[in-house]
Amino acid sequence: MTETLTDVASLFAEAAGLAASALDRNSNRSGPVVHRLSPLELQESLGLELPAKGQGMDAALELARKTLHYSVATGHPRFLNQLFGGHDAPGILGEWICALTNTSMYTYEAAPVGTVVELALLKRMSEYVGFECGEGVFAPGGSIANLMAMLTARHHYFPHVKHDGLRPDDQPVMFVSAEAHYSIARSAMVAGIGTSGCIEVPTDDVGRMLPAELEALVEEAIRAGKRPFMVAATAGTTVPGAFDPVDAIADIAKQHDLWLHVDGSYGGSVLFSAKHRQLLKGIERADSVTWNPHKMMGVPLSCAALLMKQPGALVATLGMNADYLFHADAEADWDLGDRSLQCGRRVDALKLWFSWQALGDEGYEQRVDHLFELAEEFREMVRSTPGFRLIREQESTNVCFRYLPEEQRELKGQARDRCEHEATLRIRAIMANEGSFLVNYATLDGAATFRLVASNPQTNSEDLRALLARIQSA
Amino acid sequence: MTETLTDVASLFAEAAGLAASALDRNSNRSGPVVHRLSPLELQESLGLELPAKGQGMDAALELARKTLHYSVATGHPRFLNQLFGGHDAPGILGEWICALTNTSMYTYEAAPVGTVVELALLKRMSEYVGFECGEGVFAPGGSIANLMAMLTARHHYFPHVKHDGLRPDDQPVMFVSAEAHYSIARSAMVAGIGTSGCIEVPTDDVGRMLPAELEALVEEAIRAGKRPFMVAATAGTTVPGAFDPVDAIADIAKQHDLWLHVDGSYGGSVLFSAKHRQLLKGIERADSVTWNPHKMMGVPLSCAALLMKQPGALVATLGMNADYLFHADAEADWDLGDRSLQCGRRVDALKLWFSWQALGDEGYEQRVDHLFELAEEFREMVRSTPGFRLIREQESTNVCFRYLPEEQRELKGQARDRCEHEATLRIRAIMANEGSFLVNYATLDGAATFRLVASNPQTNSEDLRALLARIQSA
Repeated sequence: MTETLTDVASLFAEAAGLAASALDRNSNRSGPVVHRLSPLELQESLGLELPAKGQGMDAALELARKTLHYSVATGHPRFLNQLFGGHDAPGILGEWICALTNTSMYTYEAAPVGTVVELALLKRMSEYVGFECGEGVFAPGGSIANLMAMLTARHHYFPHVKHDGLRPDDQPVMFVSAEAHYSIARSAMVAGIGTSGCIEVPTDDVGRMLPAELEALVEEAIRAGKRPFMVAATAGTTVPGAFDPVDAIADIAKQHDLWLHVDGSYGGSVLFSAKHRQLLKGIERADSVTWNPHKMMGVPLSCAALLMKQPGALVATLGMNADYLFHADAEADWDLGDRSLQCGRRVDALKLWFSWQALGDEGYEQRVDHLFELAEEFREMVRSTPGFRLIREQESTNVCFRYLPEEQRELKGQARDRCEHEATLRIRAIMANEGSFLVNYATLDGAATFRLVASNPQTNSEDLRALLARIQSA
Repeated sequence: MTETLTDVASLFAEAAGLAASALDRNSNRSGPVVHRLSPLELQESLGLELPAKGQGMDAALELARKTLHYSVATGHPRFLNQLFGGHDAPGILGEWICALTNTSMYTYEAAPVGTVVELALLKRMSEYVGFECGEGVFAPGGSIANLMAMLTARHHYFPHVKHDGLRPDDQPVMFVSAEAHYSIARSAMVAGIGTSGCIEVPTDDVGRMLPAELEALVEEAIRAGKRPFMVAATAGTTVPGAFDPVDAIADIAKQHDLWLHVDGSYGGSVLFSAKHRQLLKGIERADSVTWNPHKMMGVPLSCAALLMKQPGALVATLGMNADYLFHADAEADWDLGDRSLQCGRRVDALKLWFSWQALGDEGYEQRVDHLFELAEEFREMVRSTPGFRLIREQESTNVCFRYLPEEQRELKGQARDRCEHEATLRIRAIMANEGSFLVNYATLDGAATFRLVASNPQTNSEDLRALLARIQSA
């Protein structure tokens, strides 16, 4: 393939047109969220053979069109399926520029703009958390950020592990709520501690960790000869969006000398909201915090920050003195590579910078508050519509609910749960197949339960009413 | 900020124009590779305050312009600094579409196109490796891919670790060459084995692992009561670009029942080349392979694949049965989430798909062959130009060389090395500051040594001659 500058310029011009129509699709709320095919049908439609002979840029453009057609419109107001949604035009621009500059975050030399931008963002996010001289690094998602936090905690209490490995008398154990994200328990597996070393703490009706149970379990572990070293609180659990009581957990962490991590992958963004930030009360007492702007703030995936109270902790844990890459020169203090579990690393900071510049703190605050209001509006609809009921007490942007078809309304107890379970699965599949709504589900109290996430500020009352109506008519 | 569709459309149109001029800059070979500022100057020039009140999309566009101006032009033919370079217009288009579709790879439902495309790419790459029914997953870079491979190896030999953690009698040890990437030793740290459990095997003059030394070290470890479980061969080391002898290492791996991983982050792409693929001879005997299309193939960062010989091994190692996310429905077999150490995961497959469609196998083969030729051409220039000498025997796209200024040419031994060391640091800094060339360096045999990487097919003889001339005149 010989490309000319004219070819390239027209390729990008075409892409700009595709972008405008892709976002236009999100403004047509009665249009489909997805043109859904089965995997086999989709393979057939896309044509996935990789050619021996290059087909040129027009062929790539044709794939771009097909990709947009068959992808889920995650910016559509009726996409209510994940902990992210909407679209962020300045953030998309950030991704485009990231692809153009195509560099890697290991050194200031290779990524000068990315480095100073990432540092500025980390500083501002640390201020929101309340870390006075905190530092941090961006990670490819909350799971890896949580893993890095856990490794740093392990290094703090068991520094010999870095060189010597775990010793028989180390006996580390860590604690999370029973509703925490699976990446925390998996980090215990990764670290050689094993998932049995990640102890689940029971939760209340909202899904929040019970501090008294935490304390009892920590003491039990100590009596059993274990060394509790970390507790991970969750700010915004995956299913009901619950916020563990950080302040009460911090008291126990302090008393027992535990590393306190807060997984705010989802809920960290609530710090923007004067109205709701009390949900994270005490977060400034944490040792580390995960916070993903790609969720509630709407920045394109992935954009995730790991924030640390103690400067130097990440480098002490992860640094490997790779002098062929990280040179001991005047700018070495600016190199972020040794803070990361990655070597090559995308410049995920750009999109957040562009987005923050465009929206401001106020824009994010309005967004967060609006999503909370949307969720509450939908809960009110669920409460007042026959056949629907909320499952669990709920406190944030996630709404867990079930529906009982009219002819089954007199059922009670397990029979009712079973019918609701079947209705969730059946109706959800109908809506997904026709592309009218995408709403996820989870198993709560033994039965499949719709979990709607208010994640797109463009979602409105009409969308929410239409969802209830579609469920009723399915 | 209230955005209108007109605003968004014109934002993207402006971005397309910026993109065209950014790539245009790469065609001006005498223009600067970077407009270099110190970190403090750059912070000042960019203006990094994050506003309380949103500044709108025009402000984001202004940041885009500044970002492009101050970023390193990694697509410039005189950027010879990293294991990547050039620009890939169809790949950039892939990134743009990825940002627009903004989804996550955990489920087929959320990422139908990404899922079937990633599977098709993994299949084709596995065929190149020689895995008959292999599988794999994309990872955010080679370091994380290597970590996942190592965890899979650990799970294969020590399956109890997942739940119970490491036991005192496990005593796992692994082997890499002394010149392997630091991510391998770090994976031993991460996994609770400790870096002392990652034993370095001496290398030959090219930088290749010595199989006889590997064998001796494995036997020594066994005598010391350790359990050797893995050897990681490197296909394309970071500094001299050396290829460990996979076939001979595979013999030892087989004899001692070791997991054989090949870190082909850099060199995996050489499989496209009929002329050079014998450098990877025996790779089909590996259990796992890391291969990053974002390096020698020029696809935008990051795009990295982990390929496994044995289907199911990744899920067995990493899967956590998170049923709230991965539903046991008809499409569950298509969900890639349980193969990954991430939960949310960018669709890195799109850019490779677009690029492969545009370039074809033949395009990649030509690219690889051309980069090898460029490196050889430059080595010939180094050999025939007074004051320059190659350091090490060299076999691929990396050229390690030093320069001795004219007035010091009679020096020998350590005095010569010291002067070369100083010249490398001094001249490299001059070129980087003026933006004429970016060429990295590494310490080899105790002295700073230029490491040029032939990574951009647009680099030509004129660029290489100009580099030598600039070094001579510095």
